[in-house]
Amino acid sequence: MARQSSKINVVPQAILEAAANLFIQRGYEGTSMHEIAKELGVSRTALYYYYKNKEEILVSLTEGLTIVAKQLAAQVVEQEKEPEDALRELVHQHAKLILLHPVQFRVVDQAEGSLPPAQKKVAESARRILLQKFTEVIQRGVDRGRFRLVDAKVTAFAIIGMCNWTAWWFKSNGKKSADEIADILADFSLHGLERAEVKKESKLGVDESLRLLEENLSQLKEVIGTQK
Amino acid sequence: MARQSSKINVVPQAILEAAANLFIQRGYEGTSMHEIAKELGVSRTALYYYYKNKEEILVSLTEGLTIVAKQLAAQVVEQEKEPEDALRELVHQHAKLILLHPVQFRVVDQAEGSLPPAQKKVAESARRILLQKFTEVIQRGVDRGRFRLVDAKVTAFAIIGMCNWTAWWFKSNGKKSADEIADILADFSLHGLERAEVKKESKLGVDESLRLLEENLSQLKEVIGTQK
Repeated sequence: MARQSSKINVVPQAILEAAANLFIQRGYEGTSMHEIAKELGVSRTALYYYYKNKEEILVSLTEGLTIVAKQLAAQVVEQEKEPEDALRELVHQHAKLILLHPVQFRVVDQAEGSLPPAQKKVAESARRILLQKFTEVIQRGVDRGRFRLVDAKVTAFAIIGMCNWTAWWFKSNGKKSADEIADILADFSLHGLERAEVKKESKLGVDESLRLLEENLSQLKEVIGTQK
Repeated sequence: MARQSSKINVVPQAILEAAANLFIQRGYEGTSMHEIAKELGVSRTALYYYYKNKEEILVSLTEGLTIVAKQLAAQVVEQEKEPEDALRELVHQHAKLILLHPVQFRVVDQAEGSLPPAQKKVAESARRILLQKFTEVIQRGVDRGRFRLVDAKVTAFAIIGMCNWTAWWFKSNGKKSADEIADILADFSLHGLERAEVKKESKLGVDESLRLLEENLSQLKEVIGTQK
């Protein structure tokens, strides 16, 4: 029994991946359970053991992204961190979720119209809550004088969009890892929001620190008059 | 004749909008020329006067966004503006293009697989050039010491994604206009890239320059110290 339950955890992931790949190539409507089984190299009976039909696979794909995204975001906000830390974590983990499941994300986006109405509502509500959590953290930063005076909701949409769009371009075999991209997006979001006064206190890397030192040095020389 | 040529300019826009709406609702494959004509309240003959088939409509939709986006971006970069001005303009106009054609953009995204191979290549090349133009401007800002030391390509993807994603959430009857949203996205991009030091660049005295040097030096020591 223990073995079977571990199998249950592993196999659906392979099914979801194979199905997502086919849905993207041929469209959700254009893909049959038979083709999914063939792609996986298993019998249809084996496939039906896990999923009764295509719709159940789509529901499972949607839950695996939309609901997980909402839950992760809610957990960060509950922790009552400083706005900068909360935002960094929100962006990093949402980006990472998409970066690790780009094909699934695009399927969920494209096939949402094919979801059963009840599941569609669940997905919509999860997305609304994700947006709320981002908005809440940004607004908190604005209210505490740490972030610029921005429209928190539009900015939340902008940041979420930046993360979501990675599904359209990220290559897992590219130069940068999912973690590195997630870091870049989190940095960019924070710099986009932090006020200049607060900004210069943030940690710089070695390269940036060196560049700053060189610039300040030549500026000082100029002031003193050694640079003719 | 003059009248007919003005008609040619106006009518295709209505066709493109009606077709885009149907493609989004029913999928590109699930929509016929007959239904598009019905939606427009015109005869099929009238529709065929402008477009020979569904594919031509899709090609036209794709050109109206992808190729226009590339051309607009190329024009900005040619003008050799300051990096900040060039980036602001790039972001504003790309966001505006998507904000004014959200449904078309989503159709082009979803139905790209149905484009004829030659047109697909054209669209891919246009998108590549759009990315190049954004990357170029960001890199120029980094090289001139105006922007932070970022990965220009990843940041270009991030900014373009932020603009593209507006097609998923912007409501033209919402609180903010397309222009206001485009402004917010451009501001956010600039703040995300500009260095805090550049903002307070005004001439410093010897004391202030020295203090800055000391601050940066101790910051560098800290950075190196934590990276053992």
